[in-house]
Amino acid sequence: MALIVQKFGGTSVADIGRIKNAAAKVKKELDLGNRVAVVVSAMAGVTNQLVKFVEELSPLTTDEAWREYDQVVSSGEQVTSGLLALALHEMGIPAWSFAGGQVPLKTDIVHGKARIHSIDAQAIHKALDNGMVAVVAGFQGITPDGRMATLGRGGSDTSAVALAAALHADRCDIYTDVDGVYTTDPRIVPGARKLDKIAYEEMLEMASLGAKVLQTRSVEMAMNHGVVVQVLSSFADAPGTLLVKEEESMEQQKITGIAYSRDEARVTLTGVPDKPGVAAGIFGPLAEANINVDMIVQNIDEIGRVTDMTFTVGKADLDRAIAALEKARPVLQYKDLTADKNVAKISVVGVGMRSHAGVALDMFKTLAEKGINILVISTSEIKISVLIAEEYTELAVRALHQAFGLEKA
Amino acid sequence: MALIVQKFGGTSVADIGRIKNAAAKVKKELDLGNRVAVVVSAMAGVTNQLVKFVEELSPLTTDEAWREYDQVVSSGEQVTSGLLALALHEMGIPAWSFAGGQVPLKTDIVHGKARIHSIDAQAIHKALDNGMVAVVAGFQGITPDGRMATLGRGGSDTSAVALAAALHADRCDIYTDVDGVYTTDPRIVPGARKLDKIAYEEMLEMASLGAKVLQTRSVEMAMNHGVVVQVLSSFADAPGTLLVKEEESMEQQKITGIAYSRDEARVTLTGVPDKPGVAAGIFGPLAEANINVDMIVQNIDEIGRVTDMTFTVGKADLDRAIAALEKARPVLQYKDLTADKNVAKISVVGVGMRSHAGVALDMFKTLAEKGINILVISTSEIKISVLIAEEYTELAVRALHQAFGLEKA
Repeated sequence: MALIVQKFGGTSVADIGRIKNAAAKVKKELDLGNRVAVVVSAMAGVTNQLVKFVEELSPLTTDEAWREYDQVVSSGEQVTSGLLALALHEMGIPAWSFAGGQVPLKTDIVHGKARIHSIDAQAIHKALDNGMVAVVAGFQGITPDGRMATLGRGGSDTSAVALAAALHADRCDIYTDVDGVYTTDPRIVPGARKLDKIAYEEMLEMASLGAKVLQTRSVEMAMNHGVVVQVLSSFADAPGTLLVKEEESMEQQKITGIAYSRDEARVTLTGVPDKPGVAAGIFGPLAEANINVDMIVQNIDEIGRVTDMTFTVGKADLDRAIAALEKARPVLQYKDLTADKNVAKISVVGVGMRSHAGVALDMFKTLAEKGINILVISTSEIKISVLIAEEYTELAVRALHQAFGLEKA
Repeated sequence: MALIVQKFGGTSVADIGRIKNAAAKVKKELDLGNRVAVVVSAMAGVTNQLVKFVEELSPLTTDEAWREYDQVVSSGEQVTSGLLALALHEMGIPAWSFAGGQVPLKTDIVHGKARIHSIDAQAIHKALDNGMVAVVAGFQGITPDGRMATLGRGGSDTSAVALAAALHADRCDIYTDVDGVYTTDPRIVPGARKLDKIAYEEMLEMASLGAKVLQTRSVEMAMNHGVVVQVLSSFADAPGTLLVKEEESMEQQKITGIAYSRDEARVTLTGVPDKPGVAAGIFGPLAEANINVDMIVQNIDEIGRVTDMTFTVGKADLDRAIAALEKARPVLQYKDLTADKNVAKISVVGVGMRSHAGVALDMFKTLAEKGINILVISTSEIKISVLIAEEYTELAVRALHQAFGLEKA
């Protein structure tokens, strides 16, 4: 008898019919002889409506405002938890709903993007031991002073994985509106292939690079706690993609997937005097403004006296980044600042890179053949990312997907 | 410096604009130098939507289903509490929201219509002492086992009065969409007069007789705890009606108001053998079926061997009442059962009755002059009710309102 955590996202519980469908998925697992704890998101659209109410009242610039944001926004998952428990009840399945504070799932006090501190699994265990299904409101917990806290958008995935870890569950099934993790976005490449397995590390790169199947934090947590996660569709009746340890990943290919992101913008400072501490001088003001910098490349001028520095920031942060750099200009003494929002980051990801040489070369060649210019390059052990002009996004993804042999058999 | 509890009903917080308006009402009280705790209902329409979701899933026939009903339905007030706290915050007023479980307001375990057991006012006091406005979600509390509980429809009034009692507040202002308690329904009698004061006992009769300004339980609780309650409009800037002790009521009239209800139905059993225990024989099966009986009249036949029994039940309960009585027919041995849904109960209410004789006579004469037949009569110390054909409702209310001199000066 296995213990399974099932998580249903917003589209999987969007209306009463879909909530009944989710209840049927629970029943199917019980019929296999398993015990089940469920984590639910808010019904699709509900969180957006609640956030809209909040934003009509407040620019959310204070801790106090975020505290009340959480009081309002956490209600959406509470509703779904009760409705799914009712749906199960009507199918003759004993069930009990839990808001975050009723579990309790304990968080820190950073309202709006709280981190999970611990889960006291006693009450859930008791419910399961009594033959009940525990239905837990995702995305939320309770602070040390008894306030509602939310985990940030997509936080229900993290709730589910954290609960699976706390319960020592055998598997955490994330039901969503796609049927698994693909070699790339099937909307761009119709021949994209669903992966049976993917290593945590690869999924982490894919998630942080823009494949929006799972929240990055939930993948990190699954990796750290060794939670076996399956991503699958609540509208189909087929296995999805399993997240596993690298050594259990059976894929023999160099590359597992192609990811892309249009969320970044390029910033270039030219004519920066090249002296010790110049990088700190540039990135210090950005860090103070709480702006994340991703890809960085520095060109040293031949004479060795001035340098050009190019890097990327989130598109949403670009205006603030420019303001911070303009302000620091008297100190940095750069010649020119240029910026470009029309860029995309294309990445090839795969643990196979560790044992296969030449992946970067293959990637650069493929892009060159299509006449695509590379603006910036950054690499990790299992990933190579390039920044290109945004208009080449689909072309680049399709070319790389084919070049690395990721098409369906 | 007084301590005021303000309660805002669903129409008073129906959208973001109205929530800001409610916040302005709070500010006005603070500007007078008072401390304020607020109780809020769900935004108009929200509770109905949540109940609809629940009813689509379940016929609500078990305790477990009602437990989940409460988990779902209690979310509406939680949302408003956070939004009003945010609105205050944006006006520069420190505020803190409290869901029922965060107060905590402790209830029994009768989900869907829980009764308040106690309120631990410590956290609210602490918030007020720190110069904050406490914004409490109405209609809800928490059971001994940590489950959400709701107090039944209209329960936010009861939450507000209970909180005022627990805080020893100087006044409990119930903001609603009418500007006070009237001598009768102004939709029927345009000359109906707003009362400056009304005795608790009178308000209790008015509320239970169909004047839907305040929930009956909240009036009972105000009376028992001596809470000074004011009913007033959130869309006007004028005093409303004060609920006070009988001796503080300045009204010198025999009658304070005329109430009516179309919610009852008449049942008559004819030819019932008149022997000891016949009333118990009739009302026992109804009590077992959880059906409340209101007005009762029994006519003894001249020979003293058979009797007719007429009484009223809620219209919604009529079919079940008939079924229960049909089932008991072999035992009761009545001759005939007739029922009529087209009836109305008209009541005159006033503590003045205690010191003025002849009110009943005045009432019967007035109705007789208009040719209105009285089907059943019932009385209490401060109220006389008659059952009449429903079509005479408005005529009877207008005639009585004029006969007892309740028109505007």
